[in-house]
Amino acid sequence: ADAEAITKKITTCVACHGVDGQSTAPIYPNLAGQAPAYLEMALKAYRAGERNGGMSAVMTPQARNLTDEDIADMAAYYSKQ
Amino acid sequence: ADAEAITKKITTCVACHGVDGQSTAPIYPNLAGQAPAYLEMALKAYRAGERNGGMSAVMTPQARNLTDEDIADMAAYYSKQ
Repeated sequence: ADAEAITKKITTCVACHGVDGQSTAPIYPNLAGQAPAYLEMALKAYRAGERNGGMSAVMTPQARNLTDEDIADMAAYYSKQ
Repeated sequence: ADAEAITKKITTCVACHGVDGQSTAPIYPNLAGQAPAYLEMALKAYRAGERNGGMSAVMTPQARNLTDEDIADMAAYYSKQ
């Protein structure tokens, strides 16, 4: 994904996880430096409706709209921050 | 919790999350530097059986044995790494 494309994809993420993957409040996890494999696993668990509790009321509806490619792009982006 | 006590509490955690909060494989999240509020929320969601999918088959049975104090101690420890 080019820079413009990834900027669009992370428009919603950044409110809590920051452009740089540093969370904007203590209740949110930092994503910077997490491996893509972990980030993809977590997003797919939200998308599948498996990961409940915590902030899932926020995460699940957003993850539902993501394709596998979206998830791969987002995971790649945040893993590099 | 003193150093010896926390070392005992994190005996199981370190296999995947490291003594220093750096994960030992790409599928596991780094815990170093995450805020205590986030780490406590995640562990409590596992303990409650809410956080499924992902690595929950490993996490849930272990979280079930934790008291609120254990969780607070572990979250404090990893947040400081």
